[in-house]
Amino acid sequence: MNYVHRGKLITFEGCEGVGKSTQIRLLEKYLSDRHIPCLFTREPGGTPVGERIRELLKDDGLEMYCETELLLFEAARLENTRRVIIPALEEGRIVVVDRYIDSTTAYQAFGRGVDRHTVDTLNRYGSAGVKIDLTLFLDAPPFANTSRAACDRMENAGADFHERVYEGYKAIGLGEERFVSVPTLEDKHATAARIINVLEERGIL
Amino acid sequence: MNYVHRGKLITFEGCEGVGKSTQIRLLEKYLSDRHIPCLFTREPGGTPVGERIRELLKDDGLEMYCETELLLFEAARLENTRRVIIPALEEGRIVVVDRYIDSTTAYQAFGRGVDRHTVDTLNRYGSAGVKIDLTLFLDAPPFANTSRAACDRMENAGADFHERVYEGYKAIGLGEERFVSVPTLEDKHATAARIINVLEERGIL
Repeated sequence: MNYVHRGKLITFEGCEGVGKSTQIRLLEKYLSDRHIPCLFTREPGGTPVGERIRELLKDDGLEMYCETELLLFEAARLENTRRVIIPALEEGRIVVVDRYIDSTTAYQAFGRGVDRHTVDTLNRYGSAGVKIDLTLFLDAPPFANTSRAACDRMENAGADFHERVYEGYKAIGLGEERFVSVPTLEDKHATAARIINVLEERGIL
Repeated sequence: MNYVHRGKLITFEGCEGVGKSTQIRLLEKYLSDRHIPCLFTREPGGTPVGERIRELLKDDGLEMYCETELLLFEAARLENTRRVIIPALEEGRIVVVDRYIDSTTAYQAFGRGVDRHTVDTLNRYGSAGVKIDLTLFLDAPPFANTSRAACDRMENAGADFHERVYEGYKAIGLGEERFVSVPTLEDKHATAARIINVLEERGIL
Protein backbone atom coordinates (compact mmCIF):
# COMPACT_ATOMS: atom_id res chain seq x y z
CA MET A 1 0.00 0.00 0.00
CA ASN A 2 1.09 3.53 -0.61
CA TYR A 3 -0.60 6.10 1.48
CA VAL A 4 -1.09 9.48 -0.24
CA HIS A 5 -1.20 12.56 1.96
CA ARG A 6 -1.51 16.31 1.66
CA GLY A 7 1.36 17.31 3.97
CA LYS A 8 5.06 16.55 3.62
CA LEU A 9 7.01 14.01 5.62
CA ILE A 10 10.66 14.87 6.29
CA THR A 11 12.99 12.53 8.13
CA PHE A 12 16.32 13.48 9.71
CA GLU A 13 19.03 10.84 9.73
CA GLY A 14 22.69 10.62 10.64
CA CYS A 15 25.28 9.15 12.97
CA GLU A 16 25.50 10.08 16.63
CA GLY A 17 27.03 13.44 17.45
CA VAL A 18 26.47 14.84 13.97
CA GLY A 19 24.34 17.78 15.14
CA LYS A 20 20.94 16.37 14.20
CA SER A 21 19.10 17.74 17.26
CA THR A 22 20.56 21.22 16.67
CA GLN A 23 19.48 21.25 13.03
CA ILE A 24 16.01 20.00 13.91
CA ARG A 25 15.65 22.81 16.48
CA LEU A 26 16.81 25.40 13.93
CA LEU A 27 14.31 24.11 11.35
CA GLU A 28 11.54 24.12 13.96
CA LYS A 29 12.30 27.77 14.74
CA TYR A 30 12.42 28.68 11.03
CA LEU A 31 9.01 27.10 10.35
CA SER A 32 7.30 28.42 13.47
CA ASP A 33 8.66 31.96 12.88
CA ARG A 34 6.87 31.80 9.52
CA HIS A 35 3.70 30.22 10.97
CA ILE A 36 4.04 27.20 8.69
CA PRO A 37 1.89 24.35 10.10
CA CYS A 38 4.27 21.65 11.23
CA LEU A 39 4.72 18.81 13.68
CA PHE A 40 7.97 17.51 15.16
CA THR A 41 8.24 14.02 16.61
CA ARG A 42 10.95 11.54 17.54
CA GLU A 43 11.55 7.82 17.41
CA PRO A 44 11.18 5.69 19.40
CA GLY A 45 8.43 7.49 21.29
CA GLY A 46 5.81 10.06 20.39
CA THR A 47 2.84 8.11 21.85
CA PRO A 48 2.03 6.60 25.28
CA VAL A 49 2.88 3.08 24.05
CA GLY A 50 5.94 4.43 22.21
CA GLU A 51 7.33 6.17 25.27
CA ARG A 52 6.91 2.97 27.33
CA ILE A 53 8.75 1.06 24.60
CA ARG A 54 11.45 3.76 24.60
CA GLU A 55 11.98 3.12 28.33
CA LEU A 56 12.50 -0.58 27.58
CA LEU A 57 14.95 0.14 24.77
CA LYS A 58 16.95 2.66 26.82
CA ASP A 59 17.13 0.42 29.93
CA ASP A 60 20.76 -0.70 29.91
CA GLY A 61 20.02 -3.28 32.60
CA LEU A 62 17.68 -5.10 30.23
CA GLU A 63 19.54 -7.46 27.93
CA MET A 64 17.81 -8.21 24.62
CA TYR A 65 18.56 -9.63 21.18
CA CYS A 66 18.91 -7.15 18.33
CA GLU A 67 15.95 -8.84 16.61
CA THR A 68 13.84 -8.08 19.70
CA GLU A 69 15.01 -4.47 19.55
CA LEU A 70 13.91 -4.38 15.92
CA LEU A 71 10.38 -5.59 16.77
CA LEU A 72 10.11 -3.03 19.60
CA PHE A 73 11.27 -0.17 17.36
CA GLU A 74 8.65 -1.13 14.78
CA ALA A 75 5.89 -1.39 17.39
CA ALA A 76 6.69 2.15 18.59
CA ARG A 77 6.88 3.34 14.96
CA LEU A 78 3.51 1.84 14.06
CA GLU A 79 1.80 3.70 16.92
CA ASN A 80 3.61 6.96 16.13
CA THR A 81 2.89 6.71 12.41
CA ARG A 82 -0.80 5.92 12.75
CA ARG A 83 -1.65 8.11 15.75
CA VAL A 84 0.60 11.12 15.16
CA ILE A 85 2.29 11.29 11.75
CA ILE A 86 -0.58 10.33 9.41
CA PRO A 87 -3.20 12.55 11.09
CA ALA A 88 -0.78 15.52 10.89
CA LEU A 89 -0.05 14.79 7.22
CA GLU A 90 -3.79 14.66 6.57
CA GLU A 91 -4.06 18.12 8.06
CA GLY A 92 -1.49 19.27 5.51
CA ARG A 93 1.36 19.83 7.96
CA ILE A 94 5.07 19.48 7.42
CA VAL A 95 5.95 16.55 9.66
CA VAL A 96 9.56 16.23 10.78
CA VAL A 97 10.73 12.98 12.38
CA ASP A 98 13.99 12.66 14.28
CA ARG A 99 15.08 9.21 12.96
CA TYR A 100 12.76 6.92 11.01
CA ILE A 101 13.05 3.75 8.92
CA ASP A 102 16.59 4.49 7.66
CA SER A 103 17.90 4.52 11.23
CA THR A 104 16.55 1.01 11.65
CA THR A 105 18.18 -0.14 8.41
CA ALA A 106 21.50 1.56 9.22
CA TYR A 107 21.71 0.51 12.88
CA GLN A 108 19.97 -2.88 12.95
CA ALA A 109 20.82 -4.25 9.49
CA PHE A 110 24.20 -2.66 8.67
CA GLY A 111 25.35 -2.09 12.28
CA ARG A 112 24.12 -5.19 14.07
CA GLY A 113 23.81 -7.57 11.16
CA VAL A 114 20.08 -8.30 11.27
CA ASP A 115 18.92 -9.72 7.92
CA ARG A 116 18.20 -6.81 5.54
CA HIS A 117 15.09 -8.36 3.98
CA THR A 118 13.52 -8.74 7.45
CA VAL A 119 14.37 -5.14 8.33
CA ASP A 120 12.86 -3.88 5.04
CA THR A 121 9.69 -5.91 5.59
CA LEU A 122 9.27 -4.71 9.18
CA ASN A 123 10.08 -1.12 8.18
CA ARG A 124 7.25 -1.20 5.67
CA TYR A 125 4.96 -2.64 8.33
CA GLY A 126 5.95 -0.19 11.07
CA SER A 127 5.63 2.83 8.78
CA ALA A 128 2.17 1.73 7.59
CA GLY A 129 3.17 2.38 3.96
CA VAL A 130 3.49 6.13 4.49
CA LYS A 131 5.58 7.91 1.82
CA ILE A 132 8.65 9.88 2.94
CA ASP A 133 8.95 13.06 0.87
CA LEU A 134 12.48 13.97 1.92
CA THR A 135 15.24 12.41 3.99
CA LEU A 136 17.94 14.78 5.19
CA PHE A 137 21.07 12.79 5.94
CA LEU A 138 23.51 14.89 7.95
CA ASP A 139 26.67 13.59 6.42
CA ALA A 140 29.75 13.42 8.61
CA PRO A 141 31.70 10.27 9.38
CA PRO A 142 31.34 9.05 12.98
CA PHE A 143 33.58 10.90 15.47
CA ALA A 144 34.18 13.79 13.06
CA ASN A 145 32.01 16.29 14.90
CA THR A 146 31.91 14.87 18.40
CA SER A 147 33.49 15.98 21.65
CA ARG A 148 36.24 13.86 23.18
CA ALA A 149 33.90 12.56 25.93
CA ALA A 150 31.19 11.60 23.45
CA CYS A 151 33.80 9.89 21.27
CA ASP A 152 34.94 7.80 24.23
CA ARG A 153 31.37 6.69 24.92
CA MET A 154 30.79 5.83 21.26
CA GLU A 155 34.07 3.92 21.03
CA ASN A 156 32.76 1.81 23.88
CA ALA A 157 29.86 0.82 21.65
CA GLY A 158 32.50 -0.15 19.06
CA ALA A 159 34.09 2.15 16.51
CA ASP A 160 33.54 -0.53 13.85
CA PHE A 161 29.84 -0.52 14.61
CA HIS A 162 29.56 3.22 13.96
CA GLU A 163 31.60 2.87 10.77
CA ARG A 164 29.18 0.20 9.51
CA VAL A 165 26.22 2.44 10.36
CA TYR A 166 27.77 5.32 8.40
CA GLU A 167 28.52 3.15 5.39
CA GLY A 168 25.01 1.74 5.71
CA TYR A 169 23.48 5.19 5.39
CA LYS A 170 25.59 5.80 2.27
CA ALA A 171 24.33 2.54 0.78
CA ILE A 172 20.69 3.33 1.60
CA GLY A 173 20.99 6.70 -0.13
CA LEU A 174 22.19 5.30 -3.45
CA GLY A 175 19.48 5.73 -6.02
CA GLU A 176 16.88 6.92 -3.49
CA GLU A 177 15.32 10.08 -4.93
CA ARG A 178 14.05 11.17 -1.49
CA PHE A 179 17.51 10.92 0.14
CA VAL A 180 19.67 14.07 0.26
CA SER A 181 23.11 14.17 1.88
CA VAL A 182 23.83 17.45 3.62
CA PRO A 183 27.48 17.83 4.61
CA THR A 184 27.64 19.25 8.13
CA LEU A 185 29.59 22.48 8.12
CA GLU A 186 31.47 24.03 10.99
CA ASP A 187 28.91 26.85 11.18
CA LYS A 188 25.58 25.34 12.21
CA HIS A 189 23.68 28.26 10.65
CA ALA A 190 25.35 27.58 7.29
CA THR A 191 24.17 23.95 7.50
CA ALA A 192 20.68 25.15 8.46
CA ALA A 193 20.63 27.49 5.42
CA ARG A 194 21.61 24.58 3.18
CA ILE A 195 18.70 22.56 4.61
CA ILE A 196 16.24 25.37 3.87
CA ASN A 197 17.62 25.47 0.30
CA VAL A 198 16.91 21.76 -0.09
CA LEU A 199 13.34 22.20 1.16
CA GLU A 200 12.85 24.99 -1.38
CA GLU A 201 14.40 22.99 -4.24
CA ARG A 202 12.09 20.08 -3.41
CA GLY A 203 9.02 22.33 -3.39
CA ILE A 204 8.32 21.75 0.28
CA LEU A 205 8.72 25.45 1.10
CA MET B 1 15.54 -22.27 9.08
CA ASN B 2 14.43 -25.29 11.03
CA TYR B 3 16.08 -25.70 14.37
CA VAL B 4 16.61 -29.36 15.41
CA HIS B 5 16.64 -30.12 19.12
CA ARG B 6 16.91 -33.10 21.45
CA GLY B 7 13.97 -32.28 23.74
CA LYS B 8 10.29 -32.02 22.88
CA LEU B 9 8.29 -28.83 22.55
CA ILE B 10 4.63 -29.04 23.55
CA THR B 11 2.27 -26.09 23.24
CA PHE B 12 -1.11 -25.78 24.96
CA GLU B 13 -3.81 -23.88 23.12
CA GLY B 14 -7.49 -23.13 23.54
CA CYS B 15 -10.12 -20.51 24.19
CA GLU B 16 -10.45 -18.71 27.51
CA GLY B 17 -12.03 -20.65 30.36
CA VAL B 18 -11.40 -24.02 28.78
CA GLY B 19 -9.31 -25.34 31.70
CA LYS B 20 -5.88 -24.90 30.13
CA SER B 21 -4.13 -23.80 33.34
CA THR B 22 -5.60 -26.76 35.24
CA GLN B 23 -4.41 -29.25 32.62
CA ILE B 24 -0.95 -27.68 32.50
CA ARG B 25 -0.70 -27.98 36.30
CA LEU B 26 -1.79 -31.63 36.17
CA LEU B 27 0.78 -32.39 33.46
CA GLU B 28 3.49 -30.60 35.44
CA LYS B 29 2.69 -32.74 38.49
CA TYR B 30 2.67 -35.93 36.38
CA LEU B 31 6.10 -35.20 34.90
CA SER B 32 7.73 -34.02 38.12
CA ASP B 33 6.36 -37.02 40.08
CA ARG B 34 8.24 -39.17 37.55
CA HIS B 35 11.38 -36.99 37.60
CA ILE B 36 11.11 -36.33 33.87
CA PRO B 37 13.24 -33.27 33.00
CA CYS B 38 10.84 -30.54 31.92
CA LEU B 39 10.34 -26.81 31.78
CA PHE B 40 7.06 -24.89 31.88
CA THR B 41 6.78 -21.34 30.56
CA ARG B 42 4.07 -18.94 29.49
CA GLU B 43 3.51 -16.29 26.85
CA PRO B 44 3.86 -13.38 26.85
CA GLY B 45 6.53 -13.38 29.52
CA GLY B 46 9.15 -15.83 30.70
CA THR B 47 12.09 -13.38 30.48
CA PRO B 48 12.83 -9.93 31.97
CA VAL B 49 12.01 -8.22 28.64
CA GLY B 50 9.01 -10.48 28.14
CA GLU B 51 7.53 -9.67 31.55
CA ARG B 52 7.92 -5.93 30.86
CA ILE B 53 6.16 -6.41 27.52
CA ARG B 54 3.44 -8.42 29.31
CA GLU B 55 2.84 -5.39 31.58
CA LEU B 56 2.36 -3.22 28.49
CA LEU B 57 -0.04 -5.71 26.88
CA LYS B 58 -2.10 -6.14 30.05
CA ASP B 59 -2.33 -2.39 30.76
CA ASP B 60 -5.95 -1.62 29.89
CA GLY B 61 -5.25 2.11 30.10
CA LEU B 62 -2.83 1.85 27.19
CA GLU B 63 -4.62 1.98 23.85
CA MET B 64 -2.81 0.28 20.98
CA TYR B 65 -3.46 -1.06 17.48
CA CYS B 66 -3.77 -4.82 17.10
CA GLU B 67 -0.75 -4.73 14.76
CA THR B 68 1.28 -3.15 17.57
CA GLU B 69 0.08 -5.89 19.92
CA LEU B 70 1.26 -8.44 17.36
CA LEU B 71 4.77 -6.93 17.23
CA LEU B 72 4.96 -6.87 21.05
CA PHE B 73 3.83 -10.49 21.36
CA GLU B 74 6.52 -11.54 18.87
CA ALA B 75 9.22 -9.52 20.66
CA ALA B 76 8.37 -11.29 23.94
CA ARG B 77 8.26 -14.65 22.11
CA LEU B 78 11.67 -14.14 20.50
CA GLU B 79 13.27 -13.52 23.89
CA ASN B 80 11.48 -16.45 25.51
CA THR B 81 12.29 -18.81 22.63
CA ARG B 82 15.98 -17.96 22.43
CA ARG B 83 16.73 -17.51 26.14
CA VAL B 84 14.48 -20.13 27.72
CA ILE B 85 12.87 -22.60 25.30
CA ILE B 86 15.80 -23.45 23.00
CA PRO B 87 18.37 -23.90 25.82
CA ALA B 88 15.94 -26.24 27.64
CA LEU B 89 15.31 -28.23 24.43
CA GLU B 90 19.07 -28.51 23.96
CA GLU B 91 19.28 -30.04 27.43
CA GLY B 92 16.77 -32.64 26.26
CA ARG B 93 13.86 -31.42 28.38
CA ILE B 94 10.15 -31.56 27.64
CA VAL B 95 9.23 -27.91 27.27
CA VAL B 96 5.60 -26.96 27.78
CA VAL B 97 4.42 -23.50 26.70
CA ASP B 98 1.10 -22.03 27.80
CA ARG B 99 0.07 -20.42 24.46
CA TYR B 100 2.46 -20.04 21.53
CA ILE B 101 2.24 -19.16 17.84
CA ASP B 102 -1.26 -20.61 17.33
CA SER B 103 -2.67 -18.20 19.93
CA THR B 104 -1.30 -15.34 17.87
CA THR B 105 -2.85 -16.73 14.70
CA ALA B 106 -6.20 -17.46 16.36
CA TYR B 107 -6.50 -14.20 18.32
CA GLN B 108 -4.73 -11.66 16.08
CA ALA B 109 -5.48 -13.02 12.61
CA PHE B 110 -8.85 -14.79 13.03
CA GLY B 111 -10.08 -12.76 16.02
CA ARG B 112 -8.88 -9.26 15.24
CA GLY B 113 -8.49 -9.50 11.49
CA VAL B 114 -4.75 -8.84 11.15
CA ASP B 115 -3.52 -10.06 7.76
CA ARG B 116 -2.75 -13.82 8.03
CA HIS B 117 0.41 -13.70 5.91
CA THR B 118 1.89 -11.05 8.22
CA VAL B 119 1.00 -13.08 11.29
CA ASP B 120 2.58 -16.22 9.79
CA THR B 121 5.75 -14.33 8.87
CA LEU B 122 6.06 -12.75 12.31
CA ASN B 123 5.26 -16.06 14.04
CA ARG B 124 8.15 -17.69 12.21
CA TYR B 125 10.39 -14.79 13.22
CA GLY B 126 9.31 -14.72 16.86
CA SER B 127 9.65 -18.48 17.28
CA ALA B 128 13.16 -18.45 15.73
CA GLY B 129 12.28 -21.40 13.50
CA VAL B 130 11.90 -23.80 16.44
CA LYS B 131 9.87 -26.93 15.65
CA ILE B 132 6.77 -27.66 17.73
CA ASP B 133 6.49 -31.39 18.40
CA LEU B 134 2.94 -31.39 19.70
CA THR B 135 0.12 -28.88 20.08
CA LEU B 136 -2.62 -29.82 22.52
CA PHE B 137 -5.76 -27.91 21.62
CA LEU B 138 -8.26 -28.10 24.47
CA ASP B 139 -11.38 -28.25 22.40
CA ALA B 140 -14.52 -26.67 23.80
CA PRO B 141 -16.46 -23.88 22.17
CA PRO B 142 -16.20 -20.55 23.99
CA PHE B 143 -18.54 -20.24 27.00
CA ALA B 144 -19.07 -24.02 27.18
CA ASN B 145 -16.98 -24.55 30.31
CA THR B 146 -17.01 -21.13 31.88
CA SER B 147 -18.74 -19.75 34.94
CA ARG B 148 -21.53 -17.22 34.51
CA ALA B 149 -19.30 -14.35 35.73
CA ALA B 150 -16.49 -15.28 33.36
CA CYS B 151 -18.99 -15.54 30.51
CA ASP B 152 -20.20 -12.03 31.23
CA ARG B 153 -16.64 -10.70 31.11
CA MET B 154 -15.93 -12.54 27.87
CA GLU B 155 -19.16 -11.33 26.30
CA ASN B 156 -17.94 -7.83 26.97
CA ALA B 157 -14.91 -8.57 24.79
CA GLY B 158 -17.43 -9.66 22.15
CA ALA B 159 -18.97 -13.09 21.82
CA ASP B 160 -18.33 -12.94 18.06
CA PHE B 161 -14.65 -12.38 18.72
CA HIS B 162 -14.40 -15.56 20.80
CA GLU B 163 -16.34 -17.50 18.16
CA ARG B 164 -13.87 -16.37 15.49
CA VAL B 165 -10.94 -17.38 17.70
CA TYR B 166 -12.46 -20.85 18.20
CA GLU B 167 -13.12 -21.32 14.49
CA GLY B 168 -9.60 -20.02 13.86
CA TYR B 169 -8.10 -22.76 16.01
CA LYS B 170 -10.12 -25.35 14.11
CA ALA B 171 -8.81 -23.97 10.80
CA ILE B 172 -5.19 -23.94 12.03
CA GLY B 173 -5.48 -27.60 13.05
CA LEU B 174 -6.58 -28.85 9.64
CA GLY B 175 -3.81 -30.91 8.14
CA GLU B 176 -1.27 -29.99 10.84
CA GLU B 177 0.31 -33.25 11.99
CA ARG B 178 1.49 -31.70 15.26
CA PHE B 179 -2.02 -30.45 16.19
CA VAL B 180 -4.21 -32.68 18.39
CA SER B 181 -7.68 -31.69 19.55
CA VAL B 182 -8.48 -32.92 23.04
CA PRO B 183 -12.16 -32.59 23.94
CA THR B 184 -12.43 -31.26 27.47
CA LEU B 185 -14.39 -33.66 29.63
CA GLU B 186 -16.37 -32.90 32.72
CA ASP B 187 -13.81 -34.77 34.86
CA LYS B 188 -10.51 -32.90 34.66
CA HIS B 189 -8.58 -36.08 35.56
CA ALA B 190 -10.15 -37.88 32.62
CA THR B 191 -8.96 -35.06 30.31
CA ALA B 192 -5.49 -35.24 31.90
CA ALA B 193 -5.36 -39.00 31.29
CA ARG B 194 -6.28 -38.43 27.63
CA ILE B 195 -3.40 -35.94 27.36
CA ILE B 196 -0.94 -38.45 28.80
CA ASN B 197 -2.22 -40.96 26.22
CA VAL B 198 -1.48 -38.51 23.42
CA LEU B 199 2.05 -37.93 24.75
CA GLU B 200 2.61 -41.71 24.79
CA GLU B 201 1.13 -42.21 21.30
CA ARG B 202 3.45 -39.49 19.99
CA GLY B 203 6.51 -41.09 21.59
CA ILE B 204 7.09 -38.13 23.90
CA LEU B 205 6.66 -40.28 27.02
